[in-house]
Amino acid sequence: MTGSHRKLRYAMVGGGQGAFIGAVHRQALALDGQFELVAGALSSTPDRARASGRALRLPESRNHGNWKELLADELRRDAAERIDLVVIVTPNHLHHPVACAFVDAGFHVVCDKPLVHTGAQAEELAAAVRRQGTVFGVTYNYTGYPLVRQAREMVRAGELGAIRKVVVEYSQGWLATPQEAGGNKQAAWRADPAQGGLGGAIADIGTHAENLVTTVTGLRIESLCADLTAFVPGRALDDDASVLLRFEGGARGVLVASQVMTGVENGLRLQVAGTGGSLEWHQEDPNRLLHRPLDGPARLLTRGGPGLCEAARRACRLPPGHPEGFIEAFANVYLGVAGAVRAHAQGRAPQPLEADHPGIAEGVRGVRFVEAVVASAASAQKWTPLPD
Amino acid sequence: MTGSHRKLRYAMVGGGQGAFIGAVHRQALALDGQFELVAGALSSTPDRARASGRALRLPESRNHGNWKELLADELRRDAAERIDLVVIVTPNHLHHPVACAFVDAGFHVVCDKPLVHTGAQAEELAAAVRRQGTVFGVTYNYTGYPLVRQAREMVRAGELGAIRKVVVEYSQGWLATPQEAGGNKQAAWRADPAQGGLGGAIADIGTHAENLVTTVTGLRIESLCADLTAFVPGRALDDDASVLLRFEGGARGVLVASQVMTGVENGLRLQVAGTGGSLEWHQEDPNRLLHRPLDGPARLLTRGGPGLCEAARRACRLPPGHPEGFIEAFANVYLGVAGAVRAHAQGRAPQPLEADHPGIAEGVRGVRFVEAVVASAASAQKWTPLPD
Amino acid sequence: MTGSHRKLRYAMVGGGQGAFIGAVHRQALALDGQFELVAGALSSTPDRARASGRALRLPESRNHGNWKELLADELRRDAAERIDLVVIVTPNHLHHPVACAFVDAGFHVVCDKPLVHTGAQAEELAAAVRRQGTVFGVTYNYTGYPLVRQAREMVRAGELGAIRKVVVEYSQGWLATPQEAGGNKQAAWRADPAQGGLGGAIADIGTHAENLVTTVTGLRIESLCADLTAFVPGRALDDDASVLLRFEGGARGVLVASQVMTGVENGLRLQVAGTGGSLEWHQEDPNRLLHRPLDGPARLLTRGGPGLCEAARRACRLPPGHPEGFIEAFANVYLGVAGAVRAHAQGRAPQPLEADHPGIAEGVRGVRFVEAVVASAASAQKWTPLPD
Amino acid sequence: MTGSHRKLRYAMVGGGQGAFIGAVHRQALALDGQFELVAGALSSTPDRARASGRALRLPESRNHGNWKELLADELRRDAAERIDLVVIVTPNHLHHPVACAFVDAGFHVVCDKPLVHTGAQAEELAAAVRRQGTVFGVTYNYTGYPLVRQAREMVRAGELGAIRKVVVEYSQGWLATPQEAGGNKQAAWRADPAQGGLGGAIADIGTHAENLVTTVTGLRIESLCADLTAFVPGRALDDDASVLLRFEGGARGVLVASQVMTGVENGLRLQVAGTGGSLEWHQEDPNRLLHRPLDGPARLLTRGGPGLCEAARRACRLPPGHPEGFIEAFANVYLGVAGAVRAHAQGRAPQPLEADHPGIAEGVRGVRFVEAVVASAASAQKWTPLPD
Repeated sequence: MTGSHRKLRYAMVGGGQGAFIGAVHRQALALDGQFELVAGALSSTPDRARASGRALRLPESRNHGNWKELLADELRRDAAERIDLVVIVTPNHLHHPVACAFVDAGFHVVCDKPLVHTGAQAEELAAAVRRQGTVFGVTYNYTGYPLVRQAREMVRAGELGAIRKVVVEYSQGWLATPQEAGGNKQAAWRADPAQGGLGGAIADIGTHAENLVTTVTGLRIESLCADLTAFVPGRALDDDASVLLRFEGGARGVLVASQVMTGVENGLRLQVAGTGGSLEWHQEDPNRLLHRPLDGPARLLTRGGPGLCEAARRACRLPPGHPEGFIEAFANVYLGVAGAVRAHAQGRAPQPLEADHPGIAEGVRGVRFVEAVVASAASAQKWTPLPD
Repeated sequence: MTGSHRKLRYAMVGGGQGAFIGAVHRQALALDGQFELVAGALSSTPDRARASGRALRLPESRNHGNWKELLADELRRDAAERIDLVVIVTPNHLHHPVACAFVDAGFHVVCDKPLVHTGAQAEELAAAVRRQGTVFGVTYNYTGYPLVRQAREMVRAGELGAIRKVVVEYSQGWLATPQEAGGNKQAAWRADPAQGGLGGAIADIGTHAENLVTTVTGLRIESLCADLTAFVPGRALDDDASVLLRFEGGARGVLVASQVMTGVENGLRLQVAGTGGSLEWHQEDPNRLLHRPLDGPARLLTRGGPGLCEAARRACRLPPGHPEGFIEAFANVYLGVAGAVRAHAQGRAPQPLEADHPGIAEGVRGVRFVEAVVASAASAQKWTPLPD
Repeated sequence: MTGSHRKLRYAMVGGGQGAFIGAVHRQALALDGQFELVAGALSSTPDRARASGRALRLPESRNHGNWKELLADELRRDAAERIDLVVIVTPNHLHHPVACAFVDAGFHVVCDKPLVHTGAQAEELAAAVRRQGTVFGVTYNYTGYPLVRQAREMVRAGELGAIRKVVVEYSQGWLATPQEAGGNKQAAWRADPAQGGLGGAIADIGTHAENLVTTVTGLRIESLCADLTAFVPGRALDDDASVLLRFEGGARGVLVASQVMTGVENGLRLQVAGTGGSLEWHQEDPNRLLHRPLDGPARLLTRGGPGLCEAARRACRLPPGHPEGFIEAFANVYLGVAGAVRAHAQGRAPQPLEADHPGIAEGVRGVRFVEAVVASAASAQKWTPLPD
Repeated sequence: MTGSHRKLRYAMVGGGQGAFIGAVHRQALALDGQFELVAGALSSTPDRARASGRALRLPESRNHGNWKELLADELRRDAAERIDLVVIVTPNHLHHPVACAFVDAGFHVVCDKPLVHTGAQAEELAAAVRRQGTVFGVTYNYTGYPLVRQAREMVRAGELGAIRKVVVEYSQGWLATPQEAGGNKQAAWRADPAQGGLGGAIADIGTHAENLVTTVTGLRIESLCADLTAFVPGRALDDDASVLLRFEGGARGVLVASQVMTGVENGLRLQVAGTGGSLEWHQEDPNRLLHRPLDGPARLLTRGGPGLCEAARRACRLPPGHPEGFIEAFANVYLGVAGAVRAHAQGRAPQPLEADHPGIAEGVRGVRFVEAVVASAASAQKWTPLPD
């Protein structure tokens, strides 16, 4: 482990009381002792922001009512106490202004997905990151699971041969009823185009599925054909998406993202088949990866068990059979960010596995994917290209 | 059970030595003591046909070298020994001539799927069946599983509410390599358009998936959008299909049928979600049905266990926990055919559950589905309608 | 397959209307076209026996009111029509007289388990079988599953190394309430010592677990320590058993047999661990066998899939992924009996896999096991030896 | 959550570099932001202790070379900075002196299991705890899983009726080879009676199984019958245990604890059956609990899902479908300790669920269990009583 390094100091924007994902980020950040929360602007409502900060024991001087105060205050502080990075866990529409401002000010940034609302915003942000040379992480947390990394490495090493078919399904049931009308804050902002963006389910969970597929296969989606539906009456954005995918090199795929699969909890399932074998992984049973080689019986790879590659082994804290879960996978993304930040501080490029985390490129790609899906859904043409 | 009824006499066309599915039909026909094999034309090669018949202990006089002889011979026989029905398990291209001939001659017929090559052939056959008023079964055997019938009845009874989303996936890996070039007879005729028909995987297994979906949901597919691929070099027909579905009433679906999912055995999986709950069933684990109601914990329904409807209970031979499988499901289709044939003999309409089997309508629908998928795959338009 | 051999003729004793297991035997016997039912004495109640025979289309002349008539009638018949074997599926207390009489008369016999009530009866019967040299099968049907045979062969081939620990659990819940008091005929005779024998659950299902363990491991149980309980008020025989096992060579084991595991269906689960690896198999999911080698990831062996030995492959009818179940496993036992009977008819010893079925030795062993368990349960000494 | 409370300050004894469980404790302690590590004596080797403390960023003045220095130093410190509790994660033989010393000095203590080597030591420690009135936690971490708490509450509420049968199995394979001879420090001290205590597998994992059973059922083990084996040559303590259990009130049970189940990872599985239903839970799939009621289909309860009791809901951080694992369960034990410590500081008794953690009573019970198992294994008498 990172040993006697000092902890990295972070501020959080968003994620206060009533938010779900902010607490998950904080637990993931706490898990490995690499980060400490030192400042925050935890809500867009100043009173709620400050109450949230007090509950988290933030000192009053660093517990801000909005993110602009936070930024200004940090810029005034001495380097010895200034934050290393900011973690942005606001509703989607705030990602762009907050991320741009902190990047421009020279801070490392971690931002939740989907990165921003439009491809143009994404490009602008990416340009800023390139200009600054700072670290930028996007919390596509599912690729932090050790066995997803194992899958990625197996594809890279050619163990599946040439990839032919991908089926990825991300099903949830929690929006089968109009939660957004009943005071569920999480549902409300996601269902509002002004806050959530162009896409509903496709942006909220479809983009996770897209990231999982492209991370594991390493293949670019060249074109797609989408059907978006808003099943729940009154809903402005899709709550269900079905997408055909065509990848560079000829592979084909299907992506399903639905939040009206009644009773399903968090059913993200990936199948990848190549000429030499196939893989199957399910997020609700994340400590196992089924590998079916072309010849010979299926192999059941387990987190921490025999047969794992270095990238997967590094992502395991516990011996096999001691389940790790969602928070641990999330923490693995943050460990990659920590590695990148520490290497940056030392003025060197990180080792490949040291900085294993989704970055600005993945964030941009996700936004373009959502844009293309939404365009395809409105089109009578079968195939909508996805720009490179 | 049917008690002291005499056994129904059947002849088989196709299904001789080297065929896989013929033996399955015979085992399914034997299981419940309702049928006896009395005649056959078991191959299109006369010598092979007769050798196959001898191995099955057919009397020489009813062991024919081709199906026309068989038909002629049966027509000459006395009603007391004449067959009740013919079972057609030839390669697809022979379904149409054989089925038409036997229907026209007044015999009951069971035919494997896909029924015929074209919608026009299907209509012609359906018209003949209507004219004769005879029983016609199509062995969409997966709907013979007790828990598939349970799923169908739960949808009919409204237990899932209005259906919104269907995901059906039928994956196999056995055609990931060019089996047809290596002497695998099963693979060879399926890969030959003259024998297999318009579709490859979409006809061979996609049509099972279509039948499963429409049987369980009771919904008509209005339009679809398909991507067909032949991955294995030299293959003339698709070995992989991805299809978006739009159902009457607004439900949406995804159908995947692939025979290049390396290492996957017979992965037919169905998910159906409605406003009131969802169902999940997997053919490789067929004795369980997961029911997720909108409110309350998931229920694990088991074959023979508590909470099953009459249609499912009738389809169970054994107490719960004593696995029934593929042959038993197949035999359930034949029990439905037997019920229909016996009712016909008594000049009465069968009770609804007595004749529970896929018939000519399902066969026609499957052929039209394949035609529409093939048309869609060749089209730049997104949606291809499926005629009513 | 056995091709043009004539079918073997069998009579059934017991198994008439209201019985469960008789129908299973008949379906298993029908499945592969190797046997035909030609005579019977299907109940100990003459009227019920004859009504049952009529429902099965037995000719009146061979549809008997009791087994002694059946035996006398068969002895009068010409060899060309006489039965080859008798199948005994009565309540346990009739196994001994019926089996002895048919063996003494020179017939091949298949008898349900547990073989008889006492070790002395078992020895007497075994001596008769030795004297006659006829075929004797005992329907320990669970060892007919292809993957149980795979497990047995892997142990024999040394793939697990030296066996150390065995855990076998056979749990059911159907006797959690006093079924025997409520008119359940199956429950009633099992709960009556005069009909069921010395043991309740230990005889009814524990003996299956014993057979599974000793068949797979090939190890003799040297001593055991048992705790038997009758949980349901008024029950004379145990409905729950827990047994510690010590095997020759030092392996240790635990056997649980319970019929009061409320809600459990037919939960027979086996784990065998050796110095080189371990196996896990569950009867409710019988088409998979988990093999965990000492080094390397777990392997998931599937029925019909790659990596199976000849003994397992021969026991498969269908390609992988097409589930086979309880009846098919049962039918595999009968295929072994058929092989033995045909070899006997040809005056030769069967090939090893041709006659793969549990026989008189396994039957005797099961009876002694039940006796030892009952003795141990009544003893204050820890270990009760099991005679060789 | 606990909101603006200050973090509780803890010191750790043991758990330095090369230890496995120390890091798990620290991650669990960090997860919810309730604790901060402020001091330590992280190894019995002073140099290793101090190097470990530096790696964890302990200030030099609180980074001690042995636990006596730590204790002396803490007693010198002002209450405002003094530790609230000590966490003892040394090899077993040090639990007793360290725990006694800190309890006597008035500190709250968390100690790993098994508590101490002998019942006499356990009693002495328990008396000290009673005398001081301080909080004492024992990290039987498996009872921290939300669905184990759900199981416990269902039994308490009578949802299973009267408990009849319990089967608990804790299997691992990591000691199938002589790890202790090959430099594995974890294996070495466990295999040494001077450090590990009377029992090998029975103490290391059997005691977890015992705690799981007695916690969930609420039943006292009255007597037991054990078979202990050391399979690996040269091993002084058991690596395999099979135990029959008799509970107060007549329930029966079987406990298996084996560390030679080759290839098994951390297979802790519990089944509990009562007159009204049964439960099944598996630690390697901890987010699901199968409930089989006497009547009606099985219910699949999920962590965070519908139908959970308050005790289980409080133990969940994430929505259903977002897996929580071993560390989260461990952290739940520490949340209970935190609740108890905070209530103690406020001079009040904790609310029942606020202090939900295994305590000194469970620790004493575990030690007595190991003693009884070891005594039974050496006895020719079947039943060995377990003192109340």
